[in-house]
Amino acid sequence: MEKTNKINIRVRYSETDKMGVVYHGNYAQYLEIARVEWLRALGISYKELEDSGVMLPVVSLQINYKKSARYDDLLTVELHLLKTPGVKIEFDYRIWNQDQEIIAEANTVLAFIDGATFKPIRCPKYILEKL
Amino acid sequence: MEKTNKINIRVRYSETDKMGVVYHGNYAQYLEIARVEWLRALGISYKELEDSGVMLPVVSLQINYKKSARYDDLLTVELHLLKTPGVKIEFDYRIWNQDQEIIAEANTVLAFIDGATFKPIRCPKYILEKL
Amino acid sequence: MEKTNKINIRVRYSETDKMGVVYHGNYAQYLEIARVEWLRALGISYKELEDSGVMLPVVSLQINYKKSARYDDLLTVELHLLKTPGVKIEFDYRIWNQDQEIIAEANTVLAFIDGATFKPIRCPKYILEKL
Amino acid sequence: MEKTNKINIRVRYSETDKMGVVYHGNYAQYLEIARVEWLRALGISYKELEDSGVMLPVVSLQINYKKSARYDDLLTVELHLLKTPGVKIEFDYRIWNQDQEIIAEANTVLAFIDGATFKPIRCPKYILEKL
Repeated sequence: MEKTNKINIRVRYSETDKMGVVYHGNYAQYLEIARVEWLRALGISYKELEDSGVMLPVVSLQINYKKSARYDDLLTVELHLLKTPGVKIEFDYRIWNQDQEIIAEANTVLAFIDGATFKPIRCPKYILEKL
Repeated sequence: MEKTNKINIRVRYSETDKMGVVYHGNYAQYLEIARVEWLRALGISYKELEDSGVMLPVVSLQINYKKSARYDDLLTVELHLLKTPGVKIEFDYRIWNQDQEIIAEANTVLAFIDGATFKPIRCPKYILEKL
Repeated sequence: MEKTNKINIRVRYSETDKMGVVYHGNYAQYLEIARVEWLRALGISYKELEDSGVMLPVVSLQINYKKSARYDDLLTVELHLLKTPGVKIEFDYRIWNQDQEIIAEANTVLAFIDGATFKPIRCPKYILEKL
Repeated sequence: MEKTNKINIRVRYSETDKMGVVYHGNYAQYLEIARVEWLRALGISYKELEDSGVMLPVVSLQINYKKSARYDDLLTVELHLLKTPGVKIEFDYRIWNQDQEIIAEANTVLAFIDGATFKPIRCPKYILEKL
């Protein structure tokens, strides 16, 4: 059961702000890429999940910023699935830079939603089977 | 016939980059807001236009950057409709800062597209009548 | 003592994602604009604060998403200063749409930092005096 | 002399808009990544270039959009240096998707600027020597 996954992300110029560091709101993108690539590593395409009518909006986002990420840094984002998903799915994250310094810690909760009725649904079985 | 419109936009922190100025790609957002507010001034909601099945993607974007825009600048974006729209609609733009310095000049061409068939269509009559 | 402030923000097309709603990471920008305009209402320019050597990075961000914000929505962001700022400053936020539906609730903690030494400092006196 | 370079970019969810495709302004980021990686392939770090006091702002951006890029597309961005750089440097670009469909063609002109005086300067010799 693959409950964790690591990805690398190169900081883009457009992601920095005039403080010279990554704009704090842009970390949400890094966490999302970590989720999508974790699914891909399990053989699941998030795109196909949405195309099949399952939406997975973020219902809660928490980020603690420890140290600035800078332009051209090669970040590592580690994702950890906290428990077996039900109507929601929860992840913890840690982000490091290339010098093994912790940049941020984060948590997100997402909800499985039926794209047609916009009602909550349970995590699809084919995902549970891969976990 | 209102072929021009001016709007004001306050530069956001998130729109700057580590050079301390507005990231050049973010100007596309300013031009878009100018178009949407020009339509609103004509009594047309771009949102309702899309909801009615008309899409208006950008097919060409040209920006010449003259001077940097900075955090918290209060920019003026002036839009000018170049000619009566047909299957396409074309605008010129000028952007100033609060010191009347020209920041950028731009041009965009957008295409009217049927949202169901993705085929080109002509500009809806109710828009032409307002011009 | 003005501990609260309300601003209006029109949702931009660029802020939406393929789910048709505001991308969850973009709320960080809305919260920031609320902070900057709260300061401006107190007679304080965040730009001048930074120019004077005081940086105010976000050290913690928490957002609970209640309902989707949509393109062209006219959002209201209400900010509430939680207590007298020391080396940190903490805010709660509520975001509504034009139909008085609550879109999100959020909290941020920011740290006062000396831009030269990158050491924590206390909230400047001229800010405390305005509170 | 390496006058061309190709990179791959996976489209992020945050880069799409409610039309379900990549927001047109976000292509500027893809072009920039192509430039930075072209320099890196030549053994030049754009970050170090900036740290050494050379700034390289975009002075002109032109993009022609041919076909929509979609979420999770694996794009190829090909960059072509048009001529030996002087005080400016000019590139053409082509973007494809994974089905070999042309998504966009673009051109950018950037200016070499002295970061201390903000005056135009010529392309540094160590870059010319690598071309």
